[in-house]
Amino acid sequence: MVGGGKDAFIGAVHRHAAALDGRYQLVAGALSSTPERSRASGAALGLPPERSYGTWEELLAGERDREDGAEVISIVTPNHMHFPVALGAVQAGFHVVCDKPLVHTMSQAQELEAAVQAAGNVFAVTYNYSGYPLVRQAREMVRGGQLGDIRKVIVEYHQGWLATEQHGKQADWRTDPSRSGPAGALGDIGTHAEQLVSFVTGLHLQEVAAELTRFVPGRALDDDASMLLRFGGGARGLLTVSQIEIGRENDLRLSVFGTQGSLSWRQENPNVLVYDRLDAPRQLLTRGGPGLGTAAQQATRLPSGHPEAFIEAFANIYTGVADDIWARRSGESSEVLYPTIRDGVQGVAFMERVLTSAQEGGRWTAF
Amino acid sequence: MVGGGKDAFIGAVHRHAAALDGRYQLVAGALSSTPERSRASGAALGLPPERSYGTWEELLAGERDREDGAEVISIVTPNHMHFPVALGAVQAGFHVVCDKPLVHTMSQAQELEAAVQAAGNVFAVTYNYSGYPLVRQAREMVRGGQLGDIRKVIVEYHQGWLATEQHGKQADWRTDPSRSGPAGALGDIGTHAEQLVSFVTGLHLQEVAAELTRFVPGRALDDDASMLLRFGGGARGLLTVSQIEIGRENDLRLSVFGTQGSLSWRQENPNVLVYDRLDAPRQLLTRGGPGLGTAAQQATRLPSGHPEAFIEAFANIYTGVADDIWARRSGESSEVLYPTIRDGVQGVAFMERVLTSAQEGGRWTAF
Amino acid sequence: MVGGGKDAFIGAVHRHAAALDGRYQLVAGALSSTPERSRASGAALGLPPERSYGTWEELLAGERDREDGAEVISIVTPNHMHFPVALGAVQAGFHVVCDKPLVHTMSQAQELEAAVQAAGNVFAVTYNYSGYPLVRQAREMVRGGQLGDIRKVIVEYHQGWLATEQHGKQADWRTDPSRSGPAGALGDIGTHAEQLVSFVTGLHLQEVAAELTRFVPGRALDDDASMLLRFGGGARGLLTVSQIEIGRENDLRLSVFGTQGSLSWRQENPNVLVYDRLDAPRQLLTRGGPGLGTAAQQATRLPSGHPEAFIEAFANIYTGVADDIWARRSGESSEVLYPTIRDGVQGVAFMERVLTSAQEGGRWTAF
Amino acid sequence: MVGGGKDAFIGAVHRHAAALDGRYQLVAGALSSTPERSRASGAALGLPPERSYGTWEELLAGERDREDGAEVISIVTPNHMHFPVALGAVQAGFHVVCDKPLVHTMSQAQELEAAVQAAGNVFAVTYNYSGYPLVRQAREMVRGGQLGDIRKVIVEYHQGWLATEQHGKQADWRTDPSRSGPAGALGDIGTHAEQLVSFVTGLHLQEVAAELTRFVPGRALDDDASMLLRFGGGARGLLTVSQIEIGRENDLRLSVFGTQGSLSWRQENPNVLVYDRLDAPRQLLTRGGPGLGTAAQQATRLPSGHPEAFIEAFANIYTGVADDIWARRSGESSEVLYPTIRDGVQGVAFMERVLTSAQEGGRWTAF
Repeated sequence: MVGGGKDAFIGAVHRHAAALDGRYQLVAGALSSTPERSRASGAALGLPPERSYGTWEELLAGERDREDGAEVISIVTPNHMHFPVALGAVQAGFHVVCDKPLVHTMSQAQELEAAVQAAGNVFAVTYNYSGYPLVRQAREMVRGGQLGDIRKVIVEYHQGWLATEQHGKQADWRTDPSRSGPAGALGDIGTHAEQLVSFVTGLHLQEVAAELTRFVPGRALDDDASMLLRFGGGARGLLTVSQIEIGRENDLRLSVFGTQGSLSWRQENPNVLVYDRLDAPRQLLTRGGPGLGTAAQQATRLPSGHPEAFIEAFANIYTGVADDIWARRSGESSEVLYPTIRDGVQGVAFMERVLTSAQEGGRWTAF
Repeated sequence: MVGGGKDAFIGAVHRHAAALDGRYQLVAGALSSTPERSRASGAALGLPPERSYGTWEELLAGERDREDGAEVISIVTPNHMHFPVALGAVQAGFHVVCDKPLVHTMSQAQELEAAVQAAGNVFAVTYNYSGYPLVRQAREMVRGGQLGDIRKVIVEYHQGWLATEQHGKQADWRTDPSRSGPAGALGDIGTHAEQLVSFVTGLHLQEVAAELTRFVPGRALDDDASMLLRFGGGARGLLTVSQIEIGRENDLRLSVFGTQGSLSWRQENPNVLVYDRLDAPRQLLTRGGPGLGTAAQQATRLPSGHPEAFIEAFANIYTGVADDIWARRSGESSEVLYPTIRDGVQGVAFMERVLTSAQEGGRWTAF
Repeated sequence: MVGGGKDAFIGAVHRHAAALDGRYQLVAGALSSTPERSRASGAALGLPPERSYGTWEELLAGERDREDGAEVISIVTPNHMHFPVALGAVQAGFHVVCDKPLVHTMSQAQELEAAVQAAGNVFAVTYNYSGYPLVRQAREMVRGGQLGDIRKVIVEYHQGWLATEQHGKQADWRTDPSRSGPAGALGDIGTHAEQLVSFVTGLHLQEVAAELTRFVPGRALDDDASMLLRFGGGARGLLTVSQIEIGRENDLRLSVFGTQGSLSWRQENPNVLVYDRLDAPRQLLTRGGPGLGTAAQQATRLPSGHPEAFIEAFANIYTGVADDIWARRSGESSEVLYPTIRDGVQGVAFMERVLTSAQEGGRWTAF
Repeated sequence: MVGGGKDAFIGAVHRHAAALDGRYQLVAGALSSTPERSRASGAALGLPPERSYGTWEELLAGERDREDGAEVISIVTPNHMHFPVALGAVQAGFHVVCDKPLVHTMSQAQELEAAVQAAGNVFAVTYNYSGYPLVRQAREMVRGGQLGDIRKVIVEYHQGWLATEQHGKQADWRTDPSRSGPAGALGDIGTHAEQLVSFVTGLHLQEVAAELTRFVPGRALDDDASMLLRFGGGARGLLTVSQIEIGRENDLRLSVFGTQGSLSWRQENPNVLVYDRLDAPRQLLTRGGPGLGTAAQQATRLPSGHPEAFIEAFANIYTGVADDIWARRSGESSEVLYPTIRDGVQGVAFMERVLTSAQEGGRWTAF
């Protein structure tokens, strides 16, 4: 693991997610931005001193040379470190699980994608919401035609934790362009929203007309973004994300409307999928309940009514990566449901087009 | 009453709403578009034959000449008849309650507004959602500064009943430009959404960037509209309305986010107002419950937990009109909370700007 | 109308309910317990002085003698006046709408029932919750066998407004045995719960084991009641009502479980009926939505998503009475869905058995 | 681990829960009721052959003799094996985590409790719902006096998965007295409900009046139980559990009503705690959100809005056990929040009294 030391949020999530199904062991880390803090964090997590590295370069070199070296590198640093660490890990022959957004620019994204293709290893990007069983159910239903042709998609991601000038580790780097990249809320959560739409519907985004806003005085990056979307095939969409909506916690919602039916899902109540059909009563599909397809069933650990949540969904990404690594070893092919370098590149393209549209006064901007 | 005969939807609502508080009596009608059907509908409603008129012109003339003539004319026709009937009623000295959208064009709107100002009578437009007690509570809180400065507004109006090529009286005229006017869903429900934002926040809409869509093949008017909004003072907004979202019934929602707090309200669950403050647990304000201001209390008939709903809110508009007429008679002034000709004109302006923006490729269009 | 003067709660509800569909006109009243206050209340409601009576005896006599006299007497007094007024009205030949609980004792109930049978007129008891469209839908489904054989019923009625020693007109008489009768919460809301079960399921209550509690110090009547129920045919049940549950407003809930499916309904969200079938996804039936039977449709005024609520349900009782009176006049028979003297008598029997069981230490007590 | 082999449900839950925080490693198992199946299950879970034992006796003997032997024995067998395995493990000096209900009879319970006291080791019973952060918040609030004196408690546990004659491993042993013990739904989920009340409120159950029912023909044990409760200090309660309520998944609910406020919590939506105070708007406390005490905070891994659920709550029991073992080693004392042998014994006492009351016709039966 690179990043994820003391006071980090997402590093601990990755560790829980990797541990849940017993498919991973944390064997080495370069957990912070200074060697001292890295080693202290490693000790706190019980890593042996010789595998608690001071820097990520040392980690890659050290683990590559061990017979029992790490097989998968988890990258959970602030965004600006994704590119060098990921590129290094890929080139050193590791499988990689990298947090989102992938990198800052399209040129970085393309360079990294080329390296991944050259290396031929697994590269997952933790768009973790695609790991929820009912998100996978939605995907199976939409792609199987149960909604008919898709007409409209609404995706929202509401947060409020940056409504004031926050201080603290999480807020600081996310509002600092040198570490967060060119986008604020757009990059942090807008890319999740975009990937969720793409994962579920398979629609291709063709044009976007966007408005980015910085509501908190003095903030260097957008903390709110709204945009109209046009997809291939005539579907239309709406995406809004915010980190200044007081009272909203982590309220990611998706609604997909087709000619035959529609679906709605909310991350904060993730064990229910609302399914409407033409001229029929609303149905509530529940994780583990009747009426679900194989994708949801395979991503489910517990019977219905025993809720699963964020870590379990996140673990589905990690376990999917483990399955794929094992399948590759035995020469089998497996359906890959975890987000890959492709999703990561698409997320960077999305950020760039949205930034362009917003800078040009909301002009419809093509992909 | 003009319009509202057999098979009409909104006419019956107006009659229930006017009856609820015992402040109105239905005394005369020209209830349909042909004299025969008008008189048949009047008979069915128990009107005396001499006051069950064949045409609206006869009604205005007949009632003006009676000593016990009607005092208030309710106009509940399809949209294209609003202008001539309203103008006639105003010029004949009646108070008027007219359905929305007010008229088809700004020139009609301005002519009508001038006539209303000249006559000096009451002219209400039934933007009925502003009659809900908790909508009035939201208005009082926002305008009293409880949310701080408003940053963002999201208003949504989701319906699905026009998802297919419907036939039937309600669907037919609403999708026919000659009767519905230049806008479809935008005029029918988009104007409700716009007025709700204006009523609650008092923000002035300055620019709009819009996308209108006709999803159902062969439809002559938009059945879906989404747009980005810019308000005076730097607030931003998002408005989406649709009549093709399968499974959505009459799902009007408003969220208002300020620097100190936020509010959310849903028409389908109208007795709860969600109130969030910075760093404090969410509060649920309930109609009739603790913590409400005078506006909500005055619009409330029943104790908390005894739900009030659509007709009761609609009745608050009618009763507000009755109160105002009585206040004017006794030379008193009363706070007017019911929507007036001003709201009606603003709605027509809104339609025009949105149509312009959409026709010009989503260009930001100023008010 | 007898009772329902200034500061009364339920009288105004009856007036709204009667007015809503335009089937009733308030023509006379004896609205309070003293002649002076009665006449003042009558004047405030716009009754002509000669029909604003000082006492209920004067009202019955006066209206009986008028050619245009009242046809239906609404009794909305505190409970202890139900018996004399109802008996007088029935014997004077009026149709009667009487609030619940019907009377204080079984001997009163039987005397009144005999009088009603002798007179042959309409006698409705305002168990108003049976007027909700989706309650009628539930009845139709249960009685039509859609749930299979009924196994278990849970009915709850949670209120909190008497959690402290309240003062005020509503609280005072309800906690005073001389006016409220022998039961407190049990009579006030427990009888609603019992009637709702009976209305929906048609099950016959055979035994009850009850616990009544007075939580607020100094209170003379129960403010909380819980009991186990045994029905004919082997079904079991649970009934709990309370007026000391802080935060609960008017939270009446019913769940019915059968061998093939189950239904759940909540009064505070009355436009949704939750329907579960064996091994199938949950369905949400909505008032006005797809999948409803004729009983619900006939009790519905508005399209789905345009919520109806407490007054509308109450009005369905009044309108049902009006329909029945008209049907009787024309010699037709109509299905009677409004609660009758039978329901009223059953409610008194229920109170008596529960009081007996509670006094005997929760012993199973037969009906 | 003893039990928890192929097709078991709760064994996998224990493994996820133990793994989540990285505090446990599965090192040995006797996972099924036959040696062959035990060893096959052990192999499937990656246990080394020499620690994949054929029987629990071999496991206890083998691990006791190893220097690196297991420290904690998880007992996840059907109920009838809890007693011998737990007694053996305690006497062999292991710490124990045992599923509920603890044992079949009070004499077993007392013998086991004496053994635990003699051995002085940790003995946890996985009443896992007490591990939810907001359940701990409720406990802290109730015990800290925020609700005033407790008046009424309602606890419900609704399931429907045994509504028909099921076949399958889970259903079979739970409806077989020789493996499940003398109680069906009462033991399986009623004991959870009882412990939840006790954990949150600290109230002492003094009397119970119960009705047990076997709804499914041919079933040897109750599948539904309802009862009235009397607690020390005058509080009253209601407990209902069922496994035949079609459509209900795992719907455990608790409501606690005091003289100053009330709380409500639902297991299926566990990240919200509803908090009502006298004459104040309802508050929604969210896990990780503002207004929470230390108990909830310490049981929380993720920020608000990132839901935690069943496994995370279960893991809080396991991690609490690990904390306590470490604290004991270093001679420290720690507050024990995980359920202990005491809770287990109390659950058996509860079952016995309820069975007695039900057999004696619902008589109030004392503890």
